Amino acid sequence: MNLPDKVTLVEVGPRDGLQNEAATIALPDKLRLIHDLAGAGHRVIEAGSFVNPKWIPQMADSEAVFAGLSRAPGVRYTALTPNLQGFERALAAGADEVAVFGAASESFSQKNINCSVAESLERFTPVMQAAARENIPVRGYVSCVLGCPYEGEIAPDKVREVSTALLDMGCYEVSLGDTIGSGSAGSTARLLEHLLSTLPVNRLAVHFHDTYGQALANILVALQHGIATIDASVAGLGGCPYAKGASGNVATEDVVYLLDGLGIESGIDLAALVAAGERISRVLGREPVSRCARALLSKGS
Amino acid sequence: MNLPDKVTLVEVGPRDGLQNEAATIALPDKLRLIHDLAGAGHRVIEAGSFVNPKWIPQMADSEAVFAGLSRAPGVRYTALTPNLQGFERALAAGADEVAVFGAASESFSQKNINCSVAESLERFTPVMQAAARENIPVRGYVSCVLGCPYEGEIAPDKVREVSTALLDMGCYEVSLGDTIGSGSAGSTARLLEHLLSTLPVNRLAVHFHDTYGQALANILVALQHGIATIDASVAGLGGCPYAKGASGNVATEDVVYLLDGLGIESGIDLAALVAAGERISRVLGREPVSRCARALLSKGS
Repeated sequence: MNLPDKVTLVEVGPRDGLQNEAATIALPDKLRLIHDLAGAGHRVIEAGSFVNPKWIPQMADSEAVFAGLSRAPGVRYTALTPNLQGFERALAAGADEVAVFGAASESFSQKNINCSVAESLERFTPVMQAAARENIPVRGYVSCVLGCPYEGEIAPDKVREVSTALLDMGCYEVSLGDTIGSGSAGSTARLLEHLLSTLPVNRLAVHFHDTYGQALANILVALQHGIATIDASVAGLGGCPYAKGASGNVATEDVVYLLDGLGIESGIDLAALVAAGERISRVLGREPVSRCARALLSKGS
Repeated sequence: MNLPDKVTLVEVGPRDGLQNEAATIALPDKLRLIHDLAGAGHRVIEAGSFVNPKWIPQMADSEAVFAGLSRAPGVRYTALTPNLQGFERALAAGADEVAVFGAASESFSQKNINCSVAESLERFTPVMQAAARENIPVRGYVSCVLGCPYEGEIAPDKVREVSTALLDMGCYEVSLGDTIGSGSAGSTARLLEHLLSTLPVNRLAVHFHDTYGQALANILVALQHGIATIDASVAGLGGCPYAKGASGNVATEDVVYLLDGLGIESGIDLAALVAAGERISRVLGREPVSRCARALLSKGS
């Protein structure tokens, strides 16, 4: 297998994860989670989102989160910023990096942010300019890369178009999001082969959801294509294990187990990560979604 | 990717699955499950086990199961037979194929069947002879191929030794069981590379548990090594989703989703399979463990 020696994990639990939980988590619990994740070895932690709190009340305290961080050396604390106002809040709060998001599906873009994909990219222009001025790196997310709830399958060419636009606008990296988790090893391989014919592998990251149980197989395919940046959410935050069709981010613990088994360095201490996930899961009143975490906790108890 | 065009799924839900459920399922529900699985396209269904009912009460009705089958054409209904007495019961019941089981771990063999690995193989000799006489194909299971609850890691050489012995004794195929689910893509690749240096790929099957969430990634590795027979359990029967460290067989639905996505023919109708899994899960009073099944049921409802 042709695999990277080293992988960067982008821990999205405190933002993408908690944002999709029904319960709103108290500030001290969020801070403890972020602290635990840095302690487990994470070097990139998505800590908050500067969006309108009317839409996403779970992230209304992002200023307080950034203000309350006990920053670990070498860790990048990042934030989602959909527009210039959000960027300015993130900058004032002290985010090390920000992220903007586009979609590979026109219908998804229209239904979710009420504008076309091209219009959404235009809206990011002032964010990109301000970030360049302030020397803040910007990451681009692309959603629905392997399927859309409204359109079904998405053409790889559409993903390439949006990804290329985001990179051209100045994003240092694009994270390819399988938002509805419908991607499989086959469609992942086809997408990556298409993208890698024109885009450099070190500018692409993958972001899988385990809705159909396919996330780890898809990540393995991505690794085999040389992708070395993987988004994941501790304890599978963002998906409720007891709900029908629970749709959550792939659990970081499961990804670390995969990487450890392949001898790929991630810098993460799995036991510390499992403990971090168990603590926040207890706050949520449930067990971690991660099967790996449950297996290890069961052995330890 | 170097993948087989076609895969045979061995459906182990009615035996390996139900045997590991706390609840004992009534005969009509078992028969309905087996009927549904054949209807979904399964051509190999492990329908029962002829062991001492004192040890495995869930399988005490295996004679009645075989007697009550409405046999679908082209389907092999198989049974586990640990000894000659079991084989004779299976033969009388009308099993199309039987299976014997060895372990790759001495400690596991001692603790579970109170004899060494070599002694366990000796015990199968009369079964193999009787099966040859009756022209009944025998499958061999090897447990603990990627880890043992007592010994930890298992040397690939030990797996090769037992697998080779089972094939030499007359088993037409050996199913490599990751009994505790601790295998990862890395250890799976290493094991298969070791085995395939001396054993033919068409004599090997894989049997993964999703304890650590790694089963589909491991199956993808097996497919990439040319393995074309995969054991799976509808609805993930055999593992409770709410228990810490729930250790169940990989769910057939998840495997079929993977195969469909890769364009590999399995002959299974996923919707019919999901319906079969939902029905038996309802009997067990819970949702299917399969994430794919939950996602599809959620979309359909």
